[in-house]
Amino acid sequence: MSVTSALGFRAAGVRAGIKASGNHDVALVVNDGPSFVAAGVFTSNRFPAAPVLWSRQVLADGEVRAVVLNSGGANACTGPDGFADTHRTAEHVAAVLTGQGYEVGPGEVAVCSTGLIGERLPMIPLLDGIERAAGALDAAGGADAALAIMTTDSVPKTATVVAEGFTVGGMAKGAGMLAPGLATMLVVLTTDAVIDWAQAKAAVGQASTVTFDRIDSDGCMSTNDTVLLLASGASGTTPPDDAFANAVTAVCADLARQLIGDAEGASKDIEVAVAGAASVDDALEVARAVTRSNLLKCAIHGEDPNWGRVLSAIGTTQATFDPACVDVAINGVWVCRGGMIGDDRGLVSMAGREVRIDIDLHAGGEAASIWTNDLTAEYVHENSAYAT
Amino acid sequence: MSVTSALGFRAAGVRAGIKASGNHDVALVVNDGPSFVAAGVFTSNRFPAAPVLWSRQVLADGEVRAVVLNSGGANACTGPDGFADTHRTAEHVAAVLTGQGYEVGPGEVAVCSTGLIGERLPMIPLLDGIERAAGALDAAGGADAALAIMTTDSVPKTATVVAEGFTVGGMAKGAGMLAPGLATMLVVLTTDAVIDWAQAKAAVGQASTVTFDRIDSDGCMSTNDTVLLLASGASGTTPPDDAFANAVTAVCADLARQLIGDAEGASKDIEVAVAGAASVDDALEVARAVTRSNLLKCAIHGEDPNWGRVLSAIGTTQATFDPACVDVAINGVWVCRGGMIGDDRGLVSMAGREVRIDIDLHAGGEAASIWTNDLTAEYVHENSAYAT
Repeated sequence: MSVTSALGFRAAGVRAGIKASGNHDVALVVNDGPSFVAAGVFTSNRFPAAPVLWSRQVLADGEVRAVVLNSGGANACTGPDGFADTHRTAEHVAAVLTGQGYEVGPGEVAVCSTGLIGERLPMIPLLDGIERAAGALDAAGGADAALAIMTTDSVPKTATVVAEGFTVGGMAKGAGMLAPGLATMLVVLTTDAVIDWAQAKAAVGQASTVTFDRIDSDGCMSTNDTVLLLASGASGTTPPDDAFANAVTAVCADLARQLIGDAEGASKDIEVAVAGAASVDDALEVARAVTRSNLLKCAIHGEDPNWGRVLSAIGTTQATFDPACVDVAINGVWVCRGGMIGDDRGLVSMAGREVRIDIDLHAGGEAASIWTNDLTAEYVHENSAYAT
Repeated sequence: MSVTSALGFRAAGVRAGIKASGNHDVALVVNDGPSFVAAGVFTSNRFPAAPVLWSRQVLADGEVRAVVLNSGGANACTGPDGFADTHRTAEHVAAVLTGQGYEVGPGEVAVCSTGLIGERLPMIPLLDGIERAAGALDAAGGADAALAIMTTDSVPKTATVVAEGFTVGGMAKGAGMLAPGLATMLVVLTTDAVIDWAQAKAAVGQASTVTFDRIDSDGCMSTNDTVLLLASGASGTTPPDDAFANAVTAVCADLARQLIGDAEGASKDIEVAVAGAASVDDALEVARAVTRSNLLKCAIHGEDPNWGRVLSAIGTTQATFDPACVDVAINGVWVCRGGMIGDDRGLVSMAGREVRIDIDLHAGGEAASIWTNDLTAEYVHENSAYAT
């Protein structure tokens, strides 16, 4: 059900012919109200794509009536012409919906694109696809919409949380270029809760910080990262701040875990859990350094509990710790104690898909985890052949 | 000739049985004087290996009479016992050389180790190997010494510069875990120039900064990085500071280029050359971000001039630039101009082993390059099977 799990939303996904594969590539999500509150979080990359520049403006007044998304092209690094393409896309959505009797201005239409950077979008199939998507809008269209935003994803990604009197649903795409300052991806969240703009901004910001910002498949930050939250108010329920924020975070955590589980070429999902840190920032710095170690990611691919590569990564950080007090466990076996050889590495079993690395800095009471993947020959293969 | 190119040095490399392969694994380099001036640069990793801790102390008074090196084990993250092993190694070298009539104290013996982190060294074969190496010391032993420090290196790496009245030679090892704050490696440089400690320190520090610190094969920093410079004074020539520093830098540049050329599994050597930067630090930050992009490294492996991945990496930095003014060329074709689509990417040829990426930030007059490698299935294979 995805983005149509909550009341007040229709969606569609169609095959517009943008992707060479012929698969679904244009999605439309429409908020039928009565509320149109919306908030978003965007990439911090200094080369934001045209749809990011556009959607930031659309979100500036806190209202969105529709979101159009395409795969098959990121419309990034395309300059003023690319921005004009995004503008035209929003205008076309507004015109088509208005023609259906649903009055929408282009400034109420957010746009998301994903795919290759540095290529113009093929506008004729895109605009045609928008018309067909508008004609297919349905309160059960969430599944098709989730299909249409896939790039190298192997499965569509959706999540729903039904809370006390309201629902939060969502869809996500992202399989490569997953990294911090948002994992690289597009996410649309919808809810029928009655919330105001401040609640929407707080919920999507906080949820992203502890979910999407804490997955890092390959260390690469995209130009197109977007997380949007749209609220229709159609349930009539006004939830407490906490209950609402918790539901949004739960949906984001579910989607984030799905993104890691489907990362390009990965055979292992790895949680790097840092405890005993002097601050959450320290915990994140250490976890980030470890998740970025190509050597460690290769070792985990080979099911080798090579804790020396964990320590050499921790040792590059500025976090507070005494090197002689750092413990490391792999899948529960404390192979490193006090910065040196601990329990027998032969006791470590790494046969499952999920691998957990615990790091105790013994420097304080804070903790944080980052999820990553192993590095595989398949990752290399997918990403060396992507543009061709 | 390597470390025995300069007058006043003898060296040897032997098969001590530390490496499972049975290849050469213990090297000894002895300075026969009359001068024993020495300086070094070590890893900035916060988990320095036992031999790094030891050799830093040895270097503290600016004199070294001998260097013993082993492959087959890094003696890192091995705690006080590991440090005692290093101490015992130096004592054994001193005793054996003294037994040959060459008076040396353990505090004059530097130690370097390389191999797996987190395992104790097998001391019996190591000490036995030292005796045999001492018996084999020869003024033509540099080649064998270079063999004995190889780990996953496919070829030994040596370099020599003959200058006005003096010579600088050297050997290096390093093929994985190559990264900044020293590319991960061991390097021993020798010279017969008459220099003082200040000159030695300045020359090795400056040379490392612009050579070894500017190669970054896989972003991973080692616990064992060591660059040592030993000066015998045997030529009788006192060179000007500049001439000496230039010769040392030339030898280091030669060795650094050899390290990149032999990086694990690599099929491409990539120079990321940043110009138009507001500062050298900005140029290095941008070059470093680009050399760390796994996605770009995969694309280059696939000979795909995917400049979008260059821009998305540049966009993660804090360097001074206007995103609308950044140009990128791949092998001389300016595929990105002004932050957007430039010349036809189809014009780019990437068939050769060497690939050059030029980035012009148009923000100032500074420039710097970092060398890296592509990311390949062979890298994954070598590093997922390394410990097993």
